[in-house]
Amino acid sequence: MKKIINDAGNVVPEMVDGLVRSYPQYLRQIPDTEAVMRADEDSMAGKVGIVSGGGSGHEPAHAGFVGKGMLSGAVCGQVFTSPTPDQIYEAIKQADHGKGVFLVVKNYSGDVMNFDMAKDLAEVDDIQTKTIVVDDDIAVEDSLFTQGKRGVAGTVLMHKILGAAADQGASLDDLDQLAQAVLPNIKTIGIALHAATVPEVGKPGFELEDDEIEYGVGIHSEPGYKREKIKPSKEMAEELVAQIDKSLQLDSSKKYAVMVNGMGATPLMEQYIFSHDLLDLLKNKGITPSFMKVGNYMTSLDMAGLSLTVFEIKEDKWLDYLNYPVETIGW
Amino acid sequence: MKKIINDAGNVVPEMVDGLVRSYPQYLRQIPDTEAVMRADEDSMAGKVGIVSGGGSGHEPAHAGFVGKGMLSGAVCGQVFTSPTPDQIYEAIKQADHGKGVFLVVKNYSGDVMNFDMAKDLAEVDDIQTKTIVVDDDIAVEDSLFTQGKRGVAGTVLMHKILGAAADQGASLDDLDQLAQAVLPNIKTIGIALHAATVPEVGKPGFELEDDEIEYGVGIHSEPGYKREKIKPSKEMAEELVAQIDKSLQLDSSKKYAVMVNGMGATPLMEQYIFSHDLLDLLKNKGITPSFMKVGNYMTSLDMAGLSLTVFEIKEDKWLDYLNYPVETIGW
Repeated sequence: MKKIINDAGNVVPEMVDGLVRSYPQYLRQIPDTEAVMRADEDSMAGKVGIVSGGGSGHEPAHAGFVGKGMLSGAVCGQVFTSPTPDQIYEAIKQADHGKGVFLVVKNYSGDVMNFDMAKDLAEVDDIQTKTIVVDDDIAVEDSLFTQGKRGVAGTVLMHKILGAAADQGASLDDLDQLAQAVLPNIKTIGIALHAATVPEVGKPGFELEDDEIEYGVGIHSEPGYKREKIKPSKEMAEELVAQIDKSLQLDSSKKYAVMVNGMGATPLMEQYIFSHDLLDLLKNKGITPSFMKVGNYMTSLDMAGLSLTVFEIKEDKWLDYLNYPVETIGW
Repeated sequence: MKKIINDAGNVVPEMVDGLVRSYPQYLRQIPDTEAVMRADEDSMAGKVGIVSGGGSGHEPAHAGFVGKGMLSGAVCGQVFTSPTPDQIYEAIKQADHGKGVFLVVKNYSGDVMNFDMAKDLAEVDDIQTKTIVVDDDIAVEDSLFTQGKRGVAGTVLMHKILGAAADQGASLDDLDQLAQAVLPNIKTIGIALHAATVPEVGKPGFELEDDEIEYGVGIHSEPGYKREKIKPSKEMAEELVAQIDKSLQLDSSKKYAVMVNGMGATPLMEQYIFSHDLLDLLKNKGITPSFMKVGNYMTSLDMAGLSLTVFEIKEDKWLDYLNYPVETIGW
């Protein structure tokens, strides 16, 4: 394992420290935790707070999306491990400005349980909370670390939409309705060329042959749905679009936002080439995305590969939320 | 070689197409070229144009820095190969709005020659141009593809500063003076854990053992100044800071901007851990950066590693330029 780290057991505290000190204009750390909050407290006054988080190793998710117009705070667990309830609870307390706190949780059993326990702790303090559990990954039905579908890159679109709505004064109930309405329209599917190496493990989460790729892998090296010999980008795009199509029934009369998300070790060049192929395929269906992002948003350490997220925009307001200005590192 | 590409000989046109079509709000392509211009023509009216570019494989550089407040255009050569004079000339013509065009060139013999030829072509059209050749890499004196020091990640700071000044109405002569004043204060040095694989070559540009790193490598796999067994991040930071210190004489009475730049396959987690160590080292010298960026700005395809750029801010205005708002994909 070749990594720019010090102690494999201490990567998260050092990472969070480096992140927050590099960007003090955006971020502050809650002392004695790995919870990262918006530096600009004033921007949260009178608004519902939004807190997310999860295991580390997905940078810039989630702390990179903390900032005006997006998240109020993000709690960073150990690598690929849920943050603890007490740290989530601290973030909820600090994100609350009297209007309650909305929690965005990816669907992994540990995250769901720990955010739920934190929610209970907050209720004792009379802090109102609501939660959305994001399960956008259509690759497999149940997975290694969760029941039901996994939460992956589409979670970032949920952060963006809720953050914009909260910044414009949406109530906790408004956000709950919005999140519920948006969720079924966000679908993601990934592809891996090489697995991630967790520092404390020291070797890749799974092995692929030199000419092999895997479709549908999760962001913690969970198995996907098939392995194949490597193909041209165009054929990878065909496979991912076909899967998304099955789930969303792509239609030229509808509007879509698209996110092509690099997994951490995939150069932008490859992401843009994939986007070229993707946009051709969508064009053949009469679709031009109304909104698009290409880059590293929800990574998996040094995994090589990417994911495709398609979000059907059923209300014009949702597109406005995506375009709403933010002050973050990662968006 | 495992990459998300189609034809290794066609990666640049497909990449540029994917990039421009993904972000039509920022970018447009000059037909029959790989030159990328600002979509918002109006934002260039009455201002000096700024054109950069170079070989591809450094994404988001350079096209990702095209946009309001930064570059007017970027010309994308083949992978690690200078763009041709005719394409640079096209970009100059389109960037000229009557006030001339400033060219930002990284110090590689091919780039210097081709931008110079394009400049001659533009002069025939009575388009005034000035050029800065950026040579911020302090690792080695002469290198594989150039005489003198190489131009690397510090070039992005030059883009930012000149772009901000041009947007605020600086003349071609103003920009020339600014660029000359800024240049000697930007110093960069890199480290590699794994070399990049050029698609048409199909294997890494150099080989490092599983436990080996190389200090001072260039962004085209040019040799550095020493190889060692892998060390903790803190010791890598010590080495890079020591080299920068020799060149800039770091001093707590001075102001600095810092860029930690991932080489393409280096996860943000590792970049933040390095930043943690770097900030500790600077703190020991009584220095807190006045401005900092951590992320992938000037990559080298799928190279693993990073570079450290330190920029001594001799005038407060330079800091204002760094903080000036931009509308780009990559900054």
